Amino acid sequence: MVNIILFEPIEIGKPLPKRDERAVHLLKVLHKNTGDSFDAGVVGGDLGSGLIEAVRLDGIVFSLDVKESPPPRLPVCVSVGFPRPIQLKRLLRDLSNFGVEAIDLVGTDMGEKSYRDTKLLTDGGARAALVEGAAQARDTRLPLLSVYATLDDWLVERPWDRARDTLVSASGRDRSLRISPILIAADNVRSEGSFGLLNTMGHPVVIAVGSERGWSDRERDELESAGFLRLSMGSRALRTETACIAAVVLAMEKTGKLG
Amino acid sequence: MVNIILFEPIEIGKPLPKRDERAVHLLKVLHKNTGDSFDAGVVGGDLGSGLIEAVRLDGIVFSLDVKESPPPRLPVCVSVGFPRPIQLKRLLRDLSNFGVEAIDLVGTDMGEKSYRDTKLLTDGGARAALVEGAAQARDTRLPLLSVYATLDDWLVERPWDRARDTLVSASGRDRSLRISPILIAADNVRSEGSFGLLNTMGHPVVIAVGSERGWSDRERDELESAGFLRLSMGSRALRTETACIAAVVLAMEKTGKLG
Repeated sequence: MVNIILFEPIEIGKPLPKRDERAVHLLKVLHKNTGDSFDAGVVGGDLGSGLIEAVRLDGIVFSLDVKESPPPRLPVCVSVGFPRPIQLKRLLRDLSNFGVEAIDLVGTDMGEKSYRDTKLLTDGGARAALVEGAAQARDTRLPLLSVYATLDDWLVERPWDRARDTLVSASGRDRSLRISPILIAADNVRSEGSFGLLNTMGHPVVIAVGSERGWSDRERDELESAGFLRLSMGSRALRTETACIAAVVLAMEKTGKLG
Repeated sequence: MVNIILFEPIEIGKPLPKRDERAVHLLKVLHKNTGDSFDAGVVGGDLGSGLIEAVRLDGIVFSLDVKESPPPRLPVCVSVGFPRPIQLKRLLRDLSNFGVEAIDLVGTDMGEKSYRDTKLLTDGGARAALVEGAAQARDTRLPLLSVYATLDDWLVERPWDRARDTLVSASGRDRSLRISPILIAADNVRSEGSFGLLNTMGHPVVIAVGSERGWSDRERDELESAGFLRLSMGSRALRTETACIAAVVLAMEKTGKLG
């Protein structure tokens, strides 16, 4: 496994309960014991190593030595129509794996209303998925996760403007340049062109992906008024999660962050 | 839902049992009834429409009118180190969603041996996942699925040569040109360059993705001898499934099949 063990700041200085997934991973998969070190990081903080001081009945006693900065973020914000809860978990993990700046979950006209009531957002499941994705990439930082009841709310709020300073800094350009993000809506039904033709080199990217059933025409008009380009990713209908990953990969490629 | 109801040839002319997922989808989700038509296709055959002749106790009696050709295949073969069974199912569905030509499951040096014993390959689960992915894309054709015990077996067999005629025809070029496929191994650890620099326009692509723990150095040498370029997709470690999807999306983009 290439990933690291990530701790929340609040967990430092307390024994890690033995039934915790990370404890199971350390003891049973990595076969670590007292005196062994492991790759570690603090959520929102730095990277480095952990040391197992003792394995006690109440858990693993550990110390951390973290001084290394986490990797840069991918200058991409993703908004996505609420997927099914089981898909949401995987999507959050995967988008965090890629290191996107922000994930906005948006209620759309054609989306299933009941999906919005997922417990994941309140029971810690969403955060756990983000942590898992970050750990996989040896990252300590999590995408900013927000929820919007409707696409209109999201378009009025323009959260990408607030994120712009971070986005620009993540894209490695001087903040004073105030580079506009490129606004893209994934749309295989009424597209104005293909992702393939895009050149976003040096620009941050905001990607909007609809729900399973896509965008309503009303939403297409709203997106257009807000400056979004509707681009297709091939002629085949993709699942919401797959479309999100595909769009992020293409944005990485077009932004020159691939290699 | 944009997807279609796919039938295996053997199912034609028999009532579709009411507990079958497709029957549930037709009756409960699409609210279809006697006299209604629906988008349909035959696995390995053509696309068109189905008509519900009757809804009986023993199932839905239907007739098919299928004359439309399925969409073209994506001229991409993917080989992947055996993932966990639950991931395998999703991976097969997603790769089928993209319309790849062939999927080869390969035992790798660093792969978990027990993953190869999945029942999915014998209980029809793998085929069901391929059908689901194809239906999502309104396609009737499934990727060719094969299993190889080791990477060496796969490299000796060179299944992409056998698939080349189909690959070349799918890439829209004359078979007599015998265009060589571009051979790529995804490798974020010891890469020779980035996917971003690749130009595969007009060429079919063969992509090898390792298992969760990546390639052994022995396998890297074998891949190199067989003519594979080791390319990275960014500096972050990706999950096997995510890496496969990312590689296919990039191959689509680089092959000009994106829009």
